[in-house]
Amino acid sequence: MKGPRKPAAGQPRRGRPPGTTAQGVQTRAHLYQTAIELFVRRGYEATTLRQIAARAGVSVGLLYRYFPSKRAVILELYERLSDAYAARAAEMSPGRWGPRFLFALRTSLEVLAPQRRTLAALIPALLGDSEENLFAPGTAASRRRVQRVFEEAVTGASDAPDRETAAGLGRMLYLAHLGVLLWWLLDKSPQQRATTGLLATIEHMLPAAALALELPQGCPALAALDTFLRQALLE
Amino acid sequence: MKGPRKPAAGQPRRGRPPGTTAQGVQTRAHLYQTAIELFVRRGYEATTLRQIAARAGVSVGLLYRYFPSKRAVILELYERLSDAYAARAAEMSPGRWGPRFLFALRTSLEVLAPQRRTLAALIPALLGDSEENLFAPGTAASRRRVQRVFEEAVTGASDAPDRETAAGLGRMLYLAHLGVLLWWLLDKSPQQRATTGLLATIEHMLPAAALALELPQGCPALAALDTFLRQALLE
Repeated sequence: MKGPRKPAAGQPRRGRPPGTTAQGVQTRAHLYQTAIELFVRRGYEATTLRQIAARAGVSVGLLYRYFPSKRAVILELYERLSDAYAARAAEMSPGRWGPRFLFALRTSLEVLAPQRRTLAALIPALLGDSEENLFAPGTAASRRRVQRVFEEAVTGASDAPDRETAAGLGRMLYLAHLGVLLWWLLDKSPQQRATTGLLATIEHMLPAAALALELPQGCPALAALDTFLRQALLE
Repeated sequence: MKGPRKPAAGQPRRGRPPGTTAQGVQTRAHLYQTAIELFVRRGYEATTLRQIAARAGVSVGLLYRYFPSKRAVILELYERLSDAYAARAAEMSPGRWGPRFLFALRTSLEVLAPQRRTLAALIPALLGDSEENLFAPGTAASRRRVQRVFEEAVTGASDAPDRETAAGLGRMLYLAHLGVLLWWLLDKSPQQRATTGLLATIEHMLPAAALALELPQGCPALAALDTFLRQALLE
C-alpha cells in the first residue's frame, strides 16, 4: 500500500491537506460515502481499505491520502453527526432542566434517524473493544461536543442545582441518552414505536426524578455515580 | 464446503449427533475454544469458518458437523454461560427483592469475570445488527434462562408486589443488569473499580427505588416501561 504522496518543491498544491479544494471536497465525500456503504453491507470489521478503494474506483494510494484507516472514516462520521447535532441543539429554549433534557434527547434521535441502519451496522465500531469506539481518547472531541449539550441543558436551566451537581447530572443524562440510542438501534417494534413510548414514559417520570434529587440521599448518590461514570467511560 | 456426512446403513455410530461420544465431546470443546480464540484475536466479523478449521487442524467438513456457522459457536457460548449462571444463581437466599436483585447482579459479574476479554471482543456479535445478537429469536432460550433469575428475584421475594408488577420489575432489573454488564465491559478504570463503585451506589439507591414504586405514579410508569421493553427487545 502506498502512503500519501509527499509535496514536491515547486508544486505547493500537492502539499495541501486533501479535501480542501472543491474537487478534493467532492472526492472526500465520495470516498466517505463508499466506505460507509461497504461497512453497512459487509460489516465494519470485515471491510478492508482495498475493497473501499476498488468500490470507489480509485487507487489504494489515493484513498489513503484521504482516509489512512477505517478508523479515520468512523472519526469523520462522529464529527459530521456531532456537528449536525450541536447545530440543531443550539435552538434549545430557556426553562427547566427536564424539558431541556427532553429536547436534547429528542433532537438527537431526529438528527440520527436517517442514519439508523448505518449506525446499527456500526455498533461493532461504536461499542467494540477498539480505538475508534465511542469512549476512546481519539473520539473524545466529538463525544464532548454532544456531552456538552446535555451538561448545558442542566447548568443553563432556570431550576439548575449548584454548578457541580448540575454538571454531574448533565453527564448522567448524557449517558442515559446513549442508553436510549442503543435501545432505539436494537428496537424490534414496527417503526420503533417502543422507543416513542419509552420517551413518553421518561417525560412522565422526570418530575419524580427531579424530586428524588431533592432528597437527602439524592445529591451524594448522583455525585458518586458521576465519579464512577467519569472513571469508567468518559475520561 | 462439505456438509455433514450422512450416516450410512450398518454404521449407526456415524449418525449420532456430533459431540455425544467422549471423543466427540473433546473435539467439540477443542473446536469451540479455537473459534472463540480466533474471534477474540481477529474480530468476530472478520473470522471465517475456514480459518477456524485451519487453526484447529481439522477439515472444514468436520468443523461443519459440529458448528455449521459462526452463529452456532455464539449460541453455544450463550448456552454455556447462561447454564453456569442459572446454576450459581439458584443459591439465592430468601428475603426482600433488593438484596435478591443485588445477588443476581453480582453473581452475573462473577460468572462472567473470567470471560471479560472474550465478551468485550464479542460485543459486535452480542449487540450487532444480526441474527445472533442478544435479543434475536434464535438466542431466546439462553436469554430467558437469565431473565427468569431476575424475575424470580422479585416474584419470590418476601416483599414482592402483585404478580404482574413483580414480573415487570424483574424484567426491568434484567435490562438494568445488561446495562451494568455493558458498562463493565467498556469500563476503562484499573481493575474496573468504577464498576465496583457503581454496584455500591446501586445498593445505596435501592431503598429509594423501592419507595418510588410505592408512589401513585410508580406502578403505572413501571407497567409502561415493561410494555415497551418487551416490544422493543424481549419479544
